[in-house]
Amino acid sequence: MLSEELVYRYDRYELTLAGPREGNPYQDVSLRARCTLGSRTVQMDGFYDGGGSYRVRFMPDSEGTWELVTESNATELDGIRRHITCISAREGVHGPVRVRDTYHFAYDDGTPYYPFGTTCYAWIHQTRDLQERTLRTLARAPFNKLRMTVFPKHYIYNSNEPELYPFERSESGSNDYWKPNPGFFRLLEQRIDQLSRLGIEADVILFHPYDRWGYARMSHEQDLAYLRYAIARLSSSRNVWWSLANEYDFMLEWKTMPHWDALFQTIERHDPYSHLRSIHNGDLGSNYDHTKPWVTHACIQNPSVEQAPRWRRAYGKPILDDECEYEGNVPMPWGNITGRELVHRFWVMAANGAYAGHGETYADAKEELWWSKGGELKGDSWRRIGFLREIMEQGPGPLTPLEREWVWTRVAGGACGDYRLLYFGPHQPVAWGFGLPSGVPFELDWIDTWAMTITPVAGAFCDVREIPMPGRAYMAARIRPLSTKPD
Amino acid sequence: MLSEELVYRYDRYELTLAGPREGNPYQDVSLRARCTLGSRTVQMDGFYDGGGSYRVRFMPDSEGTWELVTESNATELDGIRRHITCISAREGVHGPVRVRDTYHFAYDDGTPYYPFGTTCYAWIHQTRDLQERTLRTLARAPFNKLRMTVFPKHYIYNSNEPELYPFERSESGSNDYWKPNPGFFRLLEQRIDQLSRLGIEADVILFHPYDRWGYARMSHEQDLAYLRYAIARLSSSRNVWWSLANEYDFMLEWKTMPHWDALFQTIERHDPYSHLRSIHNGDLGSNYDHTKPWVTHACIQNPSVEQAPRWRRAYGKPILDDECEYEGNVPMPWGNITGRELVHRFWVMAANGAYAGHGETYADAKEELWWSKGGELKGDSWRRIGFLREIMEQGPGPLTPLEREWVWTRVAGGACGDYRLLYFGPHQPVAWGFGLPSGVPFELDWIDTWAMTITPVAGAFCDVREIPMPGRAYMAARIRPLSTKPD
Repeated sequence: MLSEELVYRYDRYELTLAGPREGNPYQDVSLRARCTLGSRTVQMDGFYDGGGSYRVRFMPDSEGTWELVTESNATELDGIRRHITCISAREGVHGPVRVRDTYHFAYDDGTPYYPFGTTCYAWIHQTRDLQERTLRTLARAPFNKLRMTVFPKHYIYNSNEPELYPFERSESGSNDYWKPNPGFFRLLEQRIDQLSRLGIEADVILFHPYDRWGYARMSHEQDLAYLRYAIARLSSSRNVWWSLANEYDFMLEWKTMPHWDALFQTIERHDPYSHLRSIHNGDLGSNYDHTKPWVTHACIQNPSVEQAPRWRRAYGKPILDDECEYEGNVPMPWGNITGRELVHRFWVMAANGAYAGHGETYADAKEELWWSKGGELKGDSWRRIGFLREIMEQGPGPLTPLEREWVWTRVAGGACGDYRLLYFGPHQPVAWGFGLPSGVPFELDWIDTWAMTITPVAGAFCDVREIPMPGRAYMAARIRPLSTKPD
Repeated sequence: MLSEELVYRYDRYELTLAGPREGNPYQDVSLRARCTLGSRTVQMDGFYDGGGSYRVRFMPDSEGTWELVTESNATELDGIRRHITCISAREGVHGPVRVRDTYHFAYDDGTPYYPFGTTCYAWIHQTRDLQERTLRTLARAPFNKLRMTVFPKHYIYNSNEPELYPFERSESGSNDYWKPNPGFFRLLEQRIDQLSRLGIEADVILFHPYDRWGYARMSHEQDLAYLRYAIARLSSSRNVWWSLANEYDFMLEWKTMPHWDALFQTIERHDPYSHLRSIHNGDLGSNYDHTKPWVTHACIQNPSVEQAPRWRRAYGKPILDDECEYEGNVPMPWGNITGRELVHRFWVMAANGAYAGHGETYADAKEELWWSKGGELKGDSWRRIGFLREIMEQGPGPLTPLEREWVWTRVAGGACGDYRLLYFGPHQPVAWGFGLPSGVPFELDWIDTWAMTITPVAGAFCDVREIPMPGRAYMAARIRPLSTKPD
């Protein structure tokens, strides 16, 4: 924010107003605003930030001078008017991530975005020192998305109390779910903004089942009030994604499917910017029906990444298997695959025009497991995932899986025009003849997905029956048509 | 055969008779025999062996004196009578393999049999020298089943003509499918018998699509005549399994599903010993309906071995994924996985109470690929498959997959009472708590499936929450209850 009246495109404008303190201002006082530019109007909720302060936040997506007007049942908050001039975005700021080309993503300004996410579920509920260490790790890591919960977590390796609670809490530990805790939300916003500065999307998980504080069992009305408060506070952050729940199916006793649908619809109705929306399953057979119109992309927990083409067909949306098991060595079956296996799964997803997610669960005497608390990365996969990210970002665009032939249920291959990324996993051919472009001269690189080397194969190829391959496993072939090869 | 009138149980008795030579004796002369022991009668076809010789073969499965009587439309073959005394089986002879306990196998005399098969499709159509080398390799290898075709093979790496053809053939190369070639069948029988002496079941593939001689496109009547001839000749070999076809679905243009069903029914009706019957798919989505009553066990081609529990539920029969891709490095996607990956797939199948098959397709200047021609084994997997076979045979019995918990879609585990074989694949836990027996003291071994080591973990465990694990991948845990542990 340059000043109260000037704001960069996709940055946050914030209007602060003084208003009523009596009663429960969170529920009693209504506040919303309309921002108008020409014939376009964006409508958003304001929120009570405690101490008699009310705020309205706005993230303009178009340059020009917007007019903001408030509306409230409190006279001192009603009819406030501002002119906000939106100027072009700062360097490196591209806006919220959107769905592009059915199965993929791009920033609002059209810049490509390939999600390479990791998971630190409850990182903002750890000590300040640990939170800072997590940020330092993220600054060096290749990830551009982070799955994180709003609520603290009660689970194996997660027994600590948070420093701040999301709702007002008496000394005896009873919660008033009708009164959010502004101090907690300020911390959450600070962390989301810090992620934004690191180029990391915040995949904000609004509900989850691992709970001893009652957040998973609030009434439907309390859920709706919480959601609207979170939307009012957070939606002006360009890097927010809404993950309605983690393992929603483990909460069906408390929130039935119509409730989940209603919560989705509430986000859809009240988020002025249509941030991405999805929901994450627990049991492998319990994917949410991601064809429902309020779901923008499918989030899936499943180790069988070779199903990516099937999920694409089933949902017709971008596919994120954001929990294809974690690198680690803990006793839980979802948390002990090798780094090599996780890197393998990332490549299978990528070559199939879909996306995987990272997490680390190495046993640790201090119970500081990255997957939930953050801290430091200990594994082998994260650097290789960064290598894959570089390759994807060097490519000409999103990949479409080569899936029609019988070949591609065994080996993963993706195409973008005549560009090809073929990934062989445990296959180790000495030559390969499927999925090659025809009638186009191309260059070939061998990519060692583990050693992170790219070996150009001498010469150009055109209409060859086969390309040579090194006869080693966990290799990829990159095929770049000569005409469109970047410098 | 001790003499014409004395035969060991499960060995072959052969009656040779002189008969008509004129016309086409293969089709014109009918010959069958009934063998009776008490109230039991076994009926079998005889066959013309060329040169005016007719033979009837009989494999008695019960001790005692059987009476054999022939029946023929040729008077010199009709009403011949013999008394055949069957005495107890020779050491190491256990009879044909049968289905046992719904999902498993045992020899006819009850001896357990765990299939660990390999594939040399067209080995009997290679030079005699190469055939002998194949036998020498098999004598040193751990396999107890071999998939092999009756007909020669026309395919990549398989361009040679056979020395012997299964049907009479003119010099110009035209075949008379109504006249089998006895010389060829004698070779086939010799090879099947040699396998038997090595303890190897012959999984005899009766039809396959890779053909330039017309065998894949004979008429239905010719198919039936060929089948009955093959049954008459081969069914007295205790180690024969009938694999109706390899990749039957690639021949549906010539043989529709009702034809396949009729062929199965012909085997069922004419094989006096009810040898095992199955059929092998080509496309991964084209499994034959193995619930059909004439199928004794499901043969499957599929790289996704983690589907084993699903196949068990679907078919309710023993599951053999006898083509879960081959170890090798050729350009075809089904023929270039690493030895490590194939060993991994064997373990996943085994721990899930199912069975995998081996094949090797390493590129070779002489085009001598084991999978089709035999010769020598070059890979890394076969020794490790032998190691797994030893572990299975040391165990108390067939395994039932631990599949009800969410755990076992990620990690493979099988139980036989309180005995457990848990296989972790790319999972590398430092401890493990699922699928352990309760209330029973047990011993624990760590098994390195690749290094082929078994490491006993000191002490006994009972009702522990977790067992220690080494934190490395491709390990198994073997749990043996102390009370039933073998010496």
